[in-house]
Amino acid sequence: MKGEMMKKRIGFIGTGIMGAPMVKNLLKAGYPVQVFNRSKDKAKALEKDGAVFQNTIADLAQNSDVIITMVGYPEDVEEVYFGSEGIFENAKPGTYLIDMTTTSPKLSKAIEAQAKIDGLYALDAPVTGGDKGAREGTLTILVGGEQEDFQTVKPVLQAMGTKIRLMGPAGSGQHTKMANQIAIAGALSGAAEAMAYAKEKGLSMETVLEAISSGAAGSVQMTNVLSRAVEGDYQPGFFLKHFIKDMRIAKAEADSDELELPVLEDVLEISQELEKEGCGDNGTQIILKHYIDE
Amino acid sequence: MKGEMMKKRIGFIGTGIMGAPMVKNLLKAGYPVQVFNRSKDKAKALEKDGAVFQNTIADLAQNSDVIITMVGYPEDVEEVYFGSEGIFENAKPGTYLIDMTTTSPKLSKAIEAQAKIDGLYALDAPVTGGDKGAREGTLTILVGGEQEDFQTVKPVLQAMGTKIRLMGPAGSGQHTKMANQIAIAGALSGAAEAMAYAKEKGLSMETVLEAISSGAAGSVQMTNVLSRAVEGDYQPGFFLKHFIKDMRIAKAEADSDELELPVLEDVLEISQELEKEGCGDNGTQIILKHYIDE
Repeated sequence: MKGEMMKKRIGFIGTGIMGAPMVKNLLKAGYPVQVFNRSKDKAKALEKDGAVFQNTIADLAQNSDVIITMVGYPEDVEEVYFGSEGIFENAKPGTYLIDMTTTSPKLSKAIEAQAKIDGLYALDAPVTGGDKGAREGTLTILVGGEQEDFQTVKPVLQAMGTKIRLMGPAGSGQHTKMANQIAIAGALSGAAEAMAYAKEKGLSMETVLEAISSGAAGSVQMTNVLSRAVEGDYQPGFFLKHFIKDMRIAKAEADSDELELPVLEDVLEISQELEKEGCGDNGTQIILKHYIDE
Repeated sequence: MKGEMMKKRIGFIGTGIMGAPMVKNLLKAGYPVQVFNRSKDKAKALEKDGAVFQNTIADLAQNSDVIITMVGYPEDVEEVYFGSEGIFENAKPGTYLIDMTTTSPKLSKAIEAQAKIDGLYALDAPVTGGDKGAREGTLTILVGGEQEDFQTVKPVLQAMGTKIRLMGPAGSGQHTKMANQIAIAGALSGAAEAMAYAKEKGLSMETVLEAISSGAAGSVQMTNVLSRAVEGDYQPGFFLKHFIKDMRIAKAEADSDELELPVLEDVLEISQELEKEGCGDNGTQIILKHYIDE
């Protein structure tokens, strides 16, 4: 009972395909949750699950012990935190800020620096596991920030994920997510090039996929993602446009250290071409089309 | 008893790190096996397991119903089949020829064409699963050739592998193996670029590997191969020089169809640079060094 009463009041900003199920899991774990979303309807829809709808970030921030953000692009994160009606303008001292958006590590560091000035505690905590992981509460949560702050909010994160790791100081969660996306770029493109080669040589992509996916060539990207394209399904699990966002951040970060990552660069280039051709709202498996459509 | 008596007499050429354990599994399955190897000692060592040592390919070929080859490079395959003291010069009509070396699909087709002229039956049947799969009899065997010939020799292949697939006409086993190697190139380099990025950003490669390897970024290459480099272990599971051989074949095959595979090309280029620096006898995980040694 005491534990229940001590549960922190959470303000959740960004209730989209990832955020909404994360809110539901926080509610299930017994946390009081207020919600804000730019498209109001998506936040209001969570009232039936027990969330309290807030019309402004100000209203949300003033009644929250922990503010979680799960929005779209780095620009959105910047606006939500640093905007004139944003979090920094409205959060009470002592509030914990957790940005779970995949965004720029530099931005995470800027948020942390401002938080320190304002007497707030900031963590970057991007996730992997997709909308399925968000629904099932099985996300991997990659955290950057101070050990003490991490320990304080860990129970909150445990309501949304199963594998929760402090990776290092501010920005380290984002850097780890970038490493994750870089590895995905390689595995996904390798699977796509393999299938394109097989098709070019007159083999059945399905048969080749079945033959090689359980061995040394196997990857989650091959089995769960690229396989959909082999079946002609380009529906988004993970949007190509969001993958491009992530790869651009990773490339900028690598460039700033003069670290050359040619495979990442190739996959980013191919993906950007596909986006220009109107494929941004497809799933990342659309990369196969680059190779097999001539 | 009848099944036992009907077991085909096998001639096995190439008793190296892969071939030797494959011979042992054929012997265990009850097949009479004769062995030939360029370095004679490696073939003679199998006498204690019940194999019959032969000093020349001629001696081996004249007493075999099925000749299996598992040698090194395409040049070796060519010599063994087409050389003046080779298989075609010596095999009896009706003999089955199974090349399990990873080699050029064009060479597999040339072998099949010659076999037809000579009244022999040829299959290409490269494998995946490495020396571990060879020892444990759990190889994946990717076969190209005629359905009828495949059915005839399938019991022989089943003594060495668990997943045995007819992929299409002559050369299709090799093409499938090439697709496998292309997918490996992507997954391996993606994992290497991810780890190099993490290190560059001051994170622990071990910690990042643990955090991301069980999710969407996960691959056999990340978990079983690149992980060794993260631990500082560059010992060969799979030799870099052999991977280069395979990638060169794959690239030549792609080039001949004007199929561009930029990720494969990057990984081949990086690998060739590493070989020039003397890393050819390391395992493929040495690719990490390209990114982290400056």
